[in-house]
Amino acid sequence: MRGEVIPISEATIGVTDWGLTHADCVYDVVPVWSGAFFRLGDYLTRFEASMDAARMDVGIDRRGIKEALHTMVATSGLQKAYVAMVAARGTPMVHGIRDPRACANHFYAWCVPYVHVIKPETAETGAAVYLSNMTRRIPEDSVNPLAKNYHWGDFTQGLFEAKDAGFETVLLPDHEGNVTEGPGFNVFALKGNTLVTPDRGVLHGITRRTVLELAVEAGLTVEERALPIDALLEADEVFLSSSGGGVTPVARINDRQFSNGAAGPVGLQLRSAYFARLEDSRFRTEIAYT
Amino acid sequence: MRGEVIPISEATIGVTDWGLTHADCVYDVVPVWSGAFFRLGDYLTRFEASMDAARMDVGIDRRGIKEALHTMVATSGLQKAYVAMVAARGTPMVHGIRDPRACANHFYAWCVPYVHVIKPETAETGAAVYLSNMTRRIPEDSVNPLAKNYHWGDFTQGLFEAKDAGFETVLLPDHEGNVTEGPGFNVFALKGNTLVTPDRGVLHGITRRTVLELAVEAGLTVEERALPIDALLEADEVFLSSSGGGVTPVARINDRQFSNGAAGPVGLQLRSAYFARLEDSRFRTEIAYT
Repeated sequence: MRGEVIPISEATIGVTDWGLTHADCVYDVVPVWSGAFFRLGDYLTRFEASMDAARMDVGIDRRGIKEALHTMVATSGLQKAYVAMVAARGTPMVHGIRDPRACANHFYAWCVPYVHVIKPETAETGAAVYLSNMTRRIPEDSVNPLAKNYHWGDFTQGLFEAKDAGFETVLLPDHEGNVTEGPGFNVFALKGNTLVTPDRGVLHGITRRTVLELAVEAGLTVEERALPIDALLEADEVFLSSSGGGVTPVARINDRQFSNGAAGPVGLQLRSAYFARLEDSRFRTEIAYT
Repeated sequence: MRGEVIPISEATIGVTDWGLTHADCVYDVVPVWSGAFFRLGDYLTRFEASMDAARMDVGIDRRGIKEALHTMVATSGLQKAYVAMVAARGTPMVHGIRDPRACANHFYAWCVPYVHVIKPETAETGAAVYLSNMTRRIPEDSVNPLAKNYHWGDFTQGLFEAKDAGFETVLLPDHEGNVTEGPGFNVFALKGNTLVTPDRGVLHGITRRTVLELAVEAGLTVEERALPIDALLEADEVFLSSSGGGVTPVARINDRQFSNGAAGPVGLQLRSAYFARLEDSRFRTEIAYT
């Protein structure tokens, strides 16, 4: 925060910052695994693209961001971490002016111990996922999903529906009957040898990209295109991808069971392959802990 | 904040609070005018409805909220103020748990000198408003607009478009070709003796309600229903309503001029009537300044 590493309990932003009052932040989250950033360059490139899309200038360049992340994680001592970098709109420089161009944008970052979006023990046996029939993903002509952002009201509503119905998490459809994504993850459907993941109305996850690469290496055909709900439910296997936990096989969506209600073999194989890749030096940026 | 009145520069929330990271706040804003809250009961009732819709329990009742607002504004000494009350989701009580039911919700409030969403001198002569043809209001089956919330990404994008094109502010259409609302205001279209304001996909503003009441008192017929873009552009007069500035006549939407590019007579009349109502003791809750 403001160039200093401080305890997370003291890391705060002002109650009038548009970052809060207008959900006017873009952010990214890079995983740290066994003392190294994973695919740091890819996460930084996406973060820069998000800032550009949101027309934010935080006055710190890629090298500065990289240095800040290194210093922060090294100071924390965390070997496995969830590392967030955030650009916030800030507050207009004149009271009451409602012009986003007149705000002082700012950068900050924080890290906590590694987060599994789905508990690892659940991921191993296959997650139970609720497909909402009530709440739809915010469409891309309202809020750009490619600029990673904090507009999670649809996800939160969906999580309430899912938790109340006894499911781990939620998937949201769009307004055209396709599935999109869930809170913190992309979704994949495998039918025969073909792996499909939605391309529109979703964040293009870095873990999604890793999974597509691993799937090609495993000999699957991959397609990025609209995934109708019917096709999702008729898949042989479904799994989720997230920087918070890698690949999570799905055992059940509503009353549809996959692999007799267990984690599917391809999902489990890609899950292992993902964790192996986290240890692959080609994708790692080692942290010099102090 | 946490039961204490503090300088606004010290009023902050944590960077991991879902209120920020998931835009998971509901809020309300009550105006203070000449030393009194205006329609305080109506704003509190809406705030309570927003918290219910978001399933938040901040552990403080209506009387407690009222007392907090009184104490805060009295301490500030502000005679005309913009007074925000906020309920935030908080942080899950266990690290990494992604269950909105497991968060410690909390309440806070802040106030600043009264804000005019549109500058008063512009409001008097008629505002220039940009109707976006690119960005659409977040639909109500994605985020509930009746629970007043911080999902402003569509408004912010629209404001960039408007400001770049030389307009004061923006109106957003929905996905069905109707107009909805803008950043901080509702919209009204007058045709003959009939005043129309959208009813779906918009916040039901308290100032919107005041305007509907004042319009009936002035002998107009009022209708709350879908307002197609064509009907908006064919209106005799258009104006905006906001707790931040009352009624603002619109002189221009894109290249369509109203009243030869000036503020319309009915809009100006309702603007005066609104400011008169702010002084009407039936709607005022006086503040005991210390």
